[in-house]
Amino acid sequence: MSRASLLPPPEVPRITLESARCRERVVLEGISPALDGGRHPVKRFLGETLEVGADIFKDGHDLVAARVLWRAPGAESFEEQPLAYDFEADRWTASLPLDRVGRWAFCVEGWPDRFRTFREELKKRVDAGQDAAPELLEGARLLRARASADPGGAAATLRSAAARLADEAAPVEARLEAAFDHELLRATWGPHAAHDLVRSAVYEVVVDRTIARFSAWYELFPRSQSPVEGRHGTFQDVEARLPELAELGFDVLYLPPIHPIGRAHRKGRNNAPVARPGDVGSPWAIGAVEGGHTAVCPELGTLGDFEHLVRAARDHGLEIALDYALQCAPDHPWVEEHPEWFHVRADGTIRHAENPPKKYEDIVPFDFWCADRERLWEACRDILLFWIQRGVRIFRVDNPHTKPLAFWEWCLAEVQARHPEVVFLSEAFTRPKRMLALAKLGFTTSYTYFTWKNTREELEPFLEEYARPPVTEYYRPHFFANTPDILHEYLQRGGRNAFRIRLLLAGTLVPVYGIYSGFELCDATPVREESEEYLDSEKYELKTLRREAPGDVREDVRRLNLVRREHPALQHLGNLRLLAHDSPHLLAYWRSFPGDELLVAVNLDPREPAEAFVEVPIEALGIAPEQPYVVEDLLTGERWTWRGAKGWVRLDPKERVGHVLRVHVPEPA
Amino acid sequence: MSRASLLPPPEVPRITLESARCRERVVLEGISPALDGGRHPVKRFLGETLEVGADIFKDGHDLVAARVLWRAPGAESFEEQPLAYDFEADRWTASLPLDRVGRWAFCVEGWPDRFRTFREELKKRVDAGQDAAPELLEGARLLRARASADPGGAAATLRSAAARLADEAAPVEARLEAAFDHELLRATWGPHAAHDLVRSAVYEVVVDRTIARFSAWYELFPRSQSPVEGRHGTFQDVEARLPELAELGFDVLYLPPIHPIGRAHRKGRNNAPVARPGDVGSPWAIGAVEGGHTAVCPELGTLGDFEHLVRAARDHGLEIALDYALQCAPDHPWVEEHPEWFHVRADGTIRHAENPPKKYEDIVPFDFWCADRERLWEACRDILLFWIQRGVRIFRVDNPHTKPLAFWEWCLAEVQARHPEVVFLSEAFTRPKRMLALAKLGFTTSYTYFTWKNTREELEPFLEEYARPPVTEYYRPHFFANTPDILHEYLQRGGRNAFRIRLLLAGTLVPVYGIYSGFELCDATPVREESEEYLDSEKYELKTLRREAPGDVREDVRRLNLVRREHPALQHLGNLRLLAHDSPHLLAYWRSFPGDELLVAVNLDPREPAEAFVEVPIEALGIAPEQPYVVEDLLTGERWTWRGAKGWVRLDPKERVGHVLRVHVPEPA
Repeated sequence: MSRASLLPPPEVPRITLESARCRERVVLEGISPALDGGRHPVKRFLGETLEVGADIFKDGHDLVAARVLWRAPGAESFEEQPLAYDFEADRWTASLPLDRVGRWAFCVEGWPDRFRTFREELKKRVDAGQDAAPELLEGARLLRARASADPGGAAATLRSAAARLADEAAPVEARLEAAFDHELLRATWGPHAAHDLVRSAVYEVVVDRTIARFSAWYELFPRSQSPVEGRHGTFQDVEARLPELAELGFDVLYLPPIHPIGRAHRKGRNNAPVARPGDVGSPWAIGAVEGGHTAVCPELGTLGDFEHLVRAARDHGLEIALDYALQCAPDHPWVEEHPEWFHVRADGTIRHAENPPKKYEDIVPFDFWCADRERLWEACRDILLFWIQRGVRIFRVDNPHTKPLAFWEWCLAEVQARHPEVVFLSEAFTRPKRMLALAKLGFTTSYTYFTWKNTREELEPFLEEYARPPVTEYYRPHFFANTPDILHEYLQRGGRNAFRIRLLLAGTLVPVYGIYSGFELCDATPVREESEEYLDSEKYELKTLRREAPGDVREDVRRLNLVRREHPALQHLGNLRLLAHDSPHLLAYWRSFPGDELLVAVNLDPREPAEAFVEVPIEALGIAPEQPYVVEDLLTGERWTWRGAKGWVRLDPKERVGHVLRVHVPEPA
Repeated sequence: MSRASLLPPPEVPRITLESARCRERVVLEGISPALDGGRHPVKRFLGETLEVGADIFKDGHDLVAARVLWRAPGAESFEEQPLAYDFEADRWTASLPLDRVGRWAFCVEGWPDRFRTFREELKKRVDAGQDAAPELLEGARLLRARASADPGGAAATLRSAAARLADEAAPVEARLEAAFDHELLRATWGPHAAHDLVRSAVYEVVVDRTIARFSAWYELFPRSQSPVEGRHGTFQDVEARLPELAELGFDVLYLPPIHPIGRAHRKGRNNAPVARPGDVGSPWAIGAVEGGHTAVCPELGTLGDFEHLVRAARDHGLEIALDYALQCAPDHPWVEEHPEWFHVRADGTIRHAENPPKKYEDIVPFDFWCADRERLWEACRDILLFWIQRGVRIFRVDNPHTKPLAFWEWCLAEVQARHPEVVFLSEAFTRPKRMLALAKLGFTTSYTYFTWKNTREELEPFLEEYARPPVTEYYRPHFFANTPDILHEYLQRGGRNAFRIRLLLAGTLVPVYGIYSGFELCDATPVREESEEYLDSEKYELKTLRREAPGDVREDVRRLNLVRREHPALQHLGNLRLLAHDSPHLLAYWRSFPGDELLVAVNLDPREPAEAFVEVPIEALGIAPEQPYVVEDLLTGERWTWRGAKGWVRLDPKERVGHVLRVHVPEPA
C-alpha cells in the first residue's frame, strides 16, 4: 500500500499550555444554524429572518456576554448585534433580518461580563448588609483596567467612574450610586481585553431570491412552437406564447439548450442511432460549426432575438430559465480548439460519452481533471456569465452529478459572488446522498424523485425525507410532474384524472413545481411498453405547436396557479404535515402559515372513489372539540361546516380528484 | 464597542481554483463517530469495537475505494484498514477492536478506484460483445501511470501486466485474462496518485478501562473509621474495613481529601462559622503548616501508610479513589509561597471563596488566569502525578465547574497522555450544558441529578436525557444514592424502604453507582428541616465507626452487587429502555445484553403497594404471543411463568420494593 509515499502522516492536534484552546475564558458551542459543522452554508430566502443560536458559558458564577458579528453580501465589514440570553433554554440568540440576496457570514463572540458580574455581586453584598467599601475598590480597578485596554471611546467615562468608586473620602452611598449607574453599565459592555474574547468559526448563509422559494415552471422546446407544420419554431414563436403562459399562472419558462446542434453522430427520431436527412438532433448535443455554448441555433433566431424574448418574458411576469449542459457534440468548436479539455484515448481518438455498455456517440464529455483544468473550469463558468450578460438569471443544470462536485462548489460560488440573484436548479437523478451533496455544495433547488412516487406508501416517506433537519437547511425540492425524459407509467395508464392528480400534488406539496409542455394536454403515449420515453419525442424531432386538446387540464393548471398565488401557505417550504387517516388511496396534508391554514386531500386513484375521516389539528388551531368551523374548497368555492378533530372526505374522480380546503378558524368559543 | 481594537476582523474563507477543495476528486462526509464535528473525542470502553462510518462518493459512475487510518494509544504510526461498502445504506464502514486504553486517532481516506472501474466497464463491454482491444490499451496506460506514481512495491508487477494488456500481437483472450487477473486487482488497490487521495480530518476516541464502565463505589471518611470513640481514624483503620467492603461487593473506595486541614477560619461542628478547640475542620479546606495537596493529614498516618492502604485495597479487589479539590485553606503553604496564584484584592488581601452574599472564609480559590497561569496549571497537574506515583488511578474531582473548562481539557489530557488508565469523575452540579461540557472536555464519568429524581415523572425524562445521542458518545452517569452533601428528603422521610428503593434504582439503572457510608445503615437525620445536610455531619467532626445498625440494608447491598457482577446486562451503558405501564408509582425498565435479558420494576412508593401490567418486549425477544416464558427474580430466586406482551407486577413494600427479573427466553415455539 502506497500511503506513505503519497501524503504525510495525519497530524493529531495536541493541546499545550500555549495553544489557543488553553486560553479560552468561555466556551462557545452548539452554534446554529450550521451545516456539517460549518463546512457548508445553510440556505434561506430573501425576507426571512436568520435565527442565530449558541451555547455560551464559563466556569463559576460569573456572567458572560455575547454578540453576533455578521456581514451582509457585498458589505465591506462586519456589523455587530448583542446576543440575548434565554435562561429557560440556557441559550443565546439573535435574529438577523435577511434583507439582501447573496452570501452572508456570521460568527459569535463571547466574553466574561466582568463589570456586570461585579455589579450583581455588589448588589447582593449590599442587600445582605455587608461592607461594600473594599468591593468598590475592586470595581474601580476593573474600570481602570478596561479603560487601559480600550483607550478609545468610553475610556474617559470609565476613568472618571473609577475615581468616583474609589473615592474613599466620599460617602459610600455616593460611591454605590456611581457603581450602579446604568450608563456606566452600558459603557462597560464588551470584552475587557483581547484575552477575554472568544470567537467562533465563521458560518455562512446563502440567501436566495423569492422565485427560488415560490414559482411555477413551464418547460417547452422553442423549436416546437411554430404554429405552421414543418416550420422550425423560433424565439419569436416562443414570445407569441407568453400571454397564454402568463395567463395560466406560470413564473418561469424553462428552455432546453438553444445552441447549435452537432451533426456528427446526430441521433434520429425516437433516438435512432443514425439520423435521416432533415432530422434536427437532440438539443443536448451542443455545438457545431455555427458555435458552441455561447451561440444560438440559427434556426431559432439570433442572439438579439433571444435577448428580446428574455425582455418580453419579463414584461409578462415570466423569467427565462436556460439549460446548462456541460457536454459537447463531437463537432463543438472546442473539441478542435481545446482537445486537451477532453479525454484523449490511448488510440488518439477523443472519448465519447458512455456508461458501458451504453454509448452516447453524439456527445463528448469534458475531462474536468485534465492538465488544463483551471482554464477549462473558467471557460465553463464563463458560459454562465455570458448568458447572465444576456439577461438570464435561472439555470437548470443538466446532469450535474456526472461532473465533479468540487467544480460545482467553485463555479456556483464564483457566479453568485458576482450575481447573487442567479438561481441554479440541479437536475440530478442519482443516489440520495449525491443529490443532497449537490444541494449542499451550492445548487439553489433540486429535481427530486417525485415523478416516481405515486402511491401513499411511496409518497409519505418520500415527503418526510425533505422535512427532517438538516435536509431542511439546504435542500429545496422542485417537483416536476413530468419531464421530456419521464412519462411515468401512472400517467400513461391513468387517463386525464392521473394528470389532474399529479398536477394537484406537485403544486400543493411544494412551493416550486413545474410541468413539461404536453402535460396540460395529457400527452401519454410512450415510445414502447415499459419505457418512460415519449413516443416521437420532441427531443429528437420538430413538432408543431398545439395549445389545446380535447379533455386537456389547462383549466386545472390556471386554477391551481391562482390558488397558489393567493395562499402564502402554499408559498413556503417546511410547513407541510402529513395527516392521519385510514384510506390507502388518499394523501392528506396540512399546509400552515399564519392566517392561512389549508388542508389538502388528494385521491391517488384516478378511477375509484376514496374516502376517509381525515385528522384536523383543531387543538393547534385553538378550535374547541364541539365548535363548528367552515372549510372552503379553494378549487371550487364550495363550503362545508365541520366539527371535531376529524373531517369526512370523499373524493370521487368523476367529480373531483382532491380538495384544497381552507380552514376558517373561528373566534374562540 | 471595542471590537476593532481587540481582534482582527473575521476571515471568510473563499474557494479559489487553487484551494484544496477545488482539487477533491471524491467527497468524504458524515464521518462517524464524531462529536461536535471532531472538536471533542468520543468515548468508548476497553474491549469494545469502534464502528467507523463515512459517506464517500464521487461524480459519475466511477467506483471509489476507501480506508481508515488509525493509531492506537502510544503507537508511533498509523495503521490502515480498508473500509467496506454497504450498498443498501450507501455507507462505508470498518470495525476497529479497541484493545488498549488511551487516546486513539483515526481518519478516513477515499479515492477513485480507477483500475477496478476500468475492469468493471471492460467486463460490461465484453459481455455486450463490444471490441475490447482499444480499452485494453487504456487499461495498460492506467497501470503504467500507477507504476510511475508509486515506484515501490508493486510497480514491476503493474508494468508487466501493462505490457500484457497492451500486447497487440497476443490474442485478445490472453490480454483479457491478464486484465481480469485477481492478483492484479489487489496490486492496484490504493490511490493512483496523491491528487486522487482525499483525507478527512483526524478524529479521536478515548478508550477507558473497565472500572469506569462498571463499578460499585463506597465513600467513607478515613477519620471516622476508628472503632474507639474519640480516637482519630487512620489509614490502618480503613484497611481493617477492606474485607467487609469487598464482601459487600464494592469495587471502588472513595476517600474525601486526606490532606492536612487548614486552621485559619476553620469551620466548627455542623458548619459553625467558628471552630471550637478540638474541632477537626472540613477535609476540603486543604493545606496547613504540615503541607498541602501532596501531604497527608498526620492524624491519618503517613504517606507510607496511605501507599500501604492502596496496595491492601488492591489485594481485596478494591481501588482507592482520591478527591481532587483545587482550593486551599488560607494557611496552605502555596498561599505564602505563591501569592501570585491567588486573587489579591485592591486592599492587598487575598480573596477567599464566596458566592455573594455567601462567604467561605476557610477556603481561598486559585486565580487560574493569573499572570503565572502556566506554572499554576502545571502545579495543579503535578498534584495528580504525585498521587499517581503513589498508586492512585481514580480521582473524584470536586466542583470542576468552578475551575476553567480550558484547564480541564488541558490537565486531563496531560495526565492521560502519560497514564491513560486514570479515571476522572466529575462532581459538578450545575446547569446541564456545563455538566455535559465537562464530560466532553475529558471527564471519564460524571455525577448526575439522580439524588433529586425520585418519582416516575422525574425519573423517566431524566433517564431519557442520557439515552439520546450525542450524549451517549461522551457522558457516563455515576449514580450516587447519597453524598455527604445530599441527604434527600425522600430518604429523610421514607424510612428503610426508601433506602432499599434508591439502592435498587442506582444499582440497576446504570452500571456505575455508589453510596456514601451511612446509607447502608439508613442514616436519615438532617441538620434541620428542609436541609439536605446531615445532622452532625462527619464533614466537620470525628465519628466513631459503625458497621451495622438495626434494620440496616447491608444485605440488600450485598445481594445487589452480586447480581450486578453476574449479569452483563447491568454492566453496560446504553441498553436501558423504559417500559410502558399505567402505574404512577412504578418505574419499569429493560436492560438487555446478548443472552441476558432483564426486566426491572421498582415501586417508588416506600409505603403503599403498587401494581401494573408492564410491557414485555416479547416480539424483540422472539417469543410468540401465546408462548409461555419463565421470569426469575434475581433478588429472591422466585420464578413465575408469564405469557404475552404484558407481565403482571405487584410490589408490596411489606414484602419487597422491586423485582430484577431475568427473562428466560424459550426456544422458538
